[in-house]
Amino acid sequence: MIRSHEAGTLRREHAGQRVTLAGWVARRRDHGGVVFIDLRDASGSVQVVFREEDHAHDLRSEYCVKVTGEVRVRPEGNENPDLPTGAVEVVASEVEVLSEAAPLPFPIEGSTGVSEEARLKYRYLDIRRAQIADALRTRSQATYLANEVMRERGFVYVETPNLTRSTPEGARDFLVPVRLQPGSWYALPQSPQLFKQLLMVSGLERYYQLARCFRDEDLRADRQPEFTQIDIEMSFVDQDDVIELGEALIGRIWKEILGYELPTPLPRMSYADAMSRYGSDKPDLRFGVELTDLTEYFANTSFRVFQAPYVGAVVMPGGAGQTRKELDAWQEWAKSRGARGLAYVLVQEDGLGGPVAKNLSETEIAGLAKVTGAQPGDAIFFAAGLPHPSRELLGAARLEIGRRCDLIDESQWSFLWVVDAPMFEPVVDEVGRQTGWTAVHHPFTGPKPEFADTFHDNPGEALAYAYDMVCNGMEIGGGSIRIHRAEMQQRVFDVLGISKEEAESKFGFLLEAFKYGPPPHGGIAYGWDRVCMLLSGGESIRDVIAFPKTASGFDPLTAAPTPITTEQRKEAGVDAKPKGQEAPKA
Amino acid sequence: MIRSHEAGTLRREHAGQRVTLAGWVARRRDHGGVVFIDLRDASGSVQVVFREEDHAHDLRSEYCVKVTGEVRVRPEGNENPDLPTGAVEVVASEVEVLSEAAPLPFPIEGSTGVSEEARLKYRYLDIRRAQIADALRTRSQATYLANEVMRERGFVYVETPNLTRSTPEGARDFLVPVRLQPGSWYALPQSPQLFKQLLMVSGLERYYQLARCFRDEDLRADRQPEFTQIDIEMSFVDQDDVIELGEALIGRIWKEILGYELPTPLPRMSYADAMSRYGSDKPDLRFGVELTDLTEYFANTSFRVFQAPYVGAVVMPGGAGQTRKELDAWQEWAKSRGARGLAYVLVQEDGLGGPVAKNLSETEIAGLAKVTGAQPGDAIFFAAGLPHPSRELLGAARLEIGRRCDLIDESQWSFLWVVDAPMFEPVVDEVGRQTGWTAVHHPFTGPKPEFADTFHDNPGEALAYAYDMVCNGMEIGGGSIRIHRAEMQQRVFDVLGISKEEAESKFGFLLEAFKYGPPPHGGIAYGWDRVCMLLSGGESIRDVIAFPKTASGFDPLTAAPTPITTEQRKEAGVDAKPKGQEAPKA
Repeated sequence: MIRSHEAGTLRREHAGQRVTLAGWVARRRDHGGVVFIDLRDASGSVQVVFREEDHAHDLRSEYCVKVTGEVRVRPEGNENPDLPTGAVEVVASEVEVLSEAAPLPFPIEGSTGVSEEARLKYRYLDIRRAQIADALRTRSQATYLANEVMRERGFVYVETPNLTRSTPEGARDFLVPVRLQPGSWYALPQSPQLFKQLLMVSGLERYYQLARCFRDEDLRADRQPEFTQIDIEMSFVDQDDVIELGEALIGRIWKEILGYELPTPLPRMSYADAMSRYGSDKPDLRFGVELTDLTEYFANTSFRVFQAPYVGAVVMPGGAGQTRKELDAWQEWAKSRGARGLAYVLVQEDGLGGPVAKNLSETEIAGLAKVTGAQPGDAIFFAAGLPHPSRELLGAARLEIGRRCDLIDESQWSFLWVVDAPMFEPVVDEVGRQTGWTAVHHPFTGPKPEFADTFHDNPGEALAYAYDMVCNGMEIGGGSIRIHRAEMQQRVFDVLGISKEEAESKFGFLLEAFKYGPPPHGGIAYGWDRVCMLLSGGESIRDVIAFPKTASGFDPLTAAPTPITTEQRKEAGVDAKPKGQEAPKA
Repeated sequence: MIRSHEAGTLRREHAGQRVTLAGWVARRRDHGGVVFIDLRDASGSVQVVFREEDHAHDLRSEYCVKVTGEVRVRPEGNENPDLPTGAVEVVASEVEVLSEAAPLPFPIEGSTGVSEEARLKYRYLDIRRAQIADALRTRSQATYLANEVMRERGFVYVETPNLTRSTPEGARDFLVPVRLQPGSWYALPQSPQLFKQLLMVSGLERYYQLARCFRDEDLRADRQPEFTQIDIEMSFVDQDDVIELGEALIGRIWKEILGYELPTPLPRMSYADAMSRYGSDKPDLRFGVELTDLTEYFANTSFRVFQAPYVGAVVMPGGAGQTRKELDAWQEWAKSRGARGLAYVLVQEDGLGGPVAKNLSETEIAGLAKVTGAQPGDAIFFAAGLPHPSRELLGAARLEIGRRCDLIDESQWSFLWVVDAPMFEPVVDEVGRQTGWTAVHHPFTGPKPEFADTFHDNPGEALAYAYDMVCNGMEIGGGSIRIHRAEMQQRVFDVLGISKEEAESKFGFLLEAFKYGPPPHGGIAYGWDRVCMLLSGGESIRDVIAFPKTASGFDPLTAAPTPITTEQRKEAGVDAKPKGQEAPKA
């Protein structure tokens, strides 16, 4: 090492020692002949004093330097209690510029409001900022802890292929032309799902991987075309075993990194409860505000809008005090979510206000505050229509209420499992007719045992043997007990309208594997970017990814993706026809 | 868990306990009414006794079963000392078939000679074989150990992108069309080289990753289009620091997994020594047999073939006893390597035999045995021509001699570092004229400090600050101290004939990063597949990859790669022109 000590480790007991440091010039203060520099390295920073100005006069911000000098206790009154090294300083006797720095595109310290585009283009400077570096270190620590837990529990770390065949996860695959087999393409895996199930067939029993996944999805704010999951699969287990493991894993990480003791066993909530009480399959329980089901209450209403299969409400505390503009903004908000609007009443000491009130009967008005739990001064928002979308709208309104009314205690952690989701949900065409079924999780998810023999007759009622871990309103992990019998898998395909030919062509190799004594198995995968974002207090998964892409999949640093040359195109076999079809043009 | 115990853990002290096991039917023996089954799970196997045949009569090979019964000590004389559970057996009272198995394409136990195609197609059955499962477990253990070492030493585990920009590593990139930016393509990284250097510019100081790398290379026996490396980079270090870390990492792994104590510090051999003594930059030191440089010896020879810039020899002990056919086979062997043949003499008690001998002078004949160290009965093989290819031919002959003469002690480990490789080697056209220089490692490798100011004037003499770890004749790791100054990087590009424009277009972002106080840094990468192959005693990296591909990049299991549909092609934007060029067709 070209240094003897790390800057951030110097303490009073080093006083009198001659040390060599290497790091970056973080801050510089000139005091008539004496120059003070904060020297920063990965361990922290320390104040370096140059008594002769000529030593220091070339040192500018973010120069990389090597400094030799003597540690001394700072003169009394000059200590900096905010800095771990604040009791000492290094009196420089030699300095060497290891490399210079051009004027920075943005300052490293104390800057906010730098555009994300600039931060990503100069990501290597962005990472010099403590906040980003700390987030990456936290992610690393979490990864090491995950390895530790999985190792203790005897999991076999297996790397699965990234150049493989299309996987049926619902998103689009990224494709890779294969030069050595012109006209044929690999797909990048959307997850190692099929491989981890094959590893169970192989008898490894406990599989684990930090797995890179690739999904070619449309633009969304906080998506990346590649992401990482902690991927786990186990044989001979039932739901409780996987849940226990998930709690142990997340528990260790939260405990070691944040000192937070996970209250295990975590509460479990059924999907049906989560939807009816919170309008979400990933409820944020850091605040109350539950939905009220008013379908019965309005069973005989004369108000057309509420003559619907479902009517529900959510209360906004103090919402009656909103301005007209604020109330209109809610309508816009609802429309931006695809709803027609958001009916509301304002609860007053002497009755109800707002445009909906006049459509309600006296009885309906009289009991509404009580049945919804609203107090004078609150607003009640309604949704009416099909149960699922109505509840989702109210659930979203609930979250918006939580934010606007500052009801969410950001210091709190709310973990729970959401279980017993439906296996299937109807596929509905534009005019509301059901045209078929789709899998709520994925087509390899098993039914709960009590639906094993009946799910194909009654797909709408069958519950899946699936579980999602939810933290602060985000799904951070999800998994299921899988189907391990070809016969049952076939029945699921039948419900989903996947023909034998299609199943054979897409995952025939899994069905083939299931012929050879597959064990019962199940697993879980954690969205590692999201977990690390929560751990480090970030607001976007981009904060915990070293080199993230923008929402359009662009990397401002390397300028990837780029056009390719005609020669590359030809060489990669992009335009070749596969064997057996038309011959590739010469 | 649907079982109470793991089969392989049962011992005498479990006698009398009622246990539930789950696993696979490994072997079955019927003894008139009593059926013995070896029940195998991931922990091992145990003998299960069915006293009533009807319980067992449906159980065939590789059925997955759940068995409940009582553990008992085996009757005296029936113990199996070869099996950890050999003192006991389980007397079954209940059995449940969890899943059946069709007749197997190949037997799980005791089978050899199964074609690799079949093994890979049914890889999930192949992994049920102890040898393959053990190799994957060893790999997992090594991965956990690597994490442990790197964590102890404060390395930050950082995941770098897989969808990125072309990297200049010398092989072809795999390309990925980008639907959201039609006409633009990502490249899969050949290594995280540029990103890890950027992480050093960012001040993280210690980076580590288990990194997937992708290289679209031509067919070679033991290559995979994707492979894994343990990727490491450090700031403020010199060569000794990286070497010490590499020894600690490999030392821990060999110690924990094989009980082998790495003799650190490992010997270091200069590239020049390795080439001149062993004809290889990765010498296998498990046996002697060194090359002899005979250039001086034959300086005045009249034998045309030996009038060459370099003449060298290697001795094959006992080689004079080879048949004519065997000697001819050596010629074929040399031709298959692109040489014209392999000149030889046979050392006899009374002189030299073989076709070359008659071309040599008496003096040349007289001293040859002594100068090469050959004994009567040995053969001496020669190579003459340019030093490098001649030495490589002799080095390959040396390895072949080691194998044919059984000189290699397979129980031995030979680790060393090869250091001081040249920075550049000449690029030569078909007629032997030098047309330029190419980097021996990669263009980011720094010169040894003494060549820092001169390498561009004298590229052929400059040594690189690079180091390769060699084990048993295989390069398992390699790295270097990098260039961290844009000015020096530019001089390297100049030597390599990379224009400013080309450098800017290929890795302008790295050069840009070097403007902002880059620290001195260096690193190393271990070929993880190869390391794990050595650890597990495999003969191919395919033995330590869960789902490997054949040499042509084909996966017999999933049948990847596959043709894509016209729709996929259109949707992925494969045929779109990039923005700014011709507009994509609608």
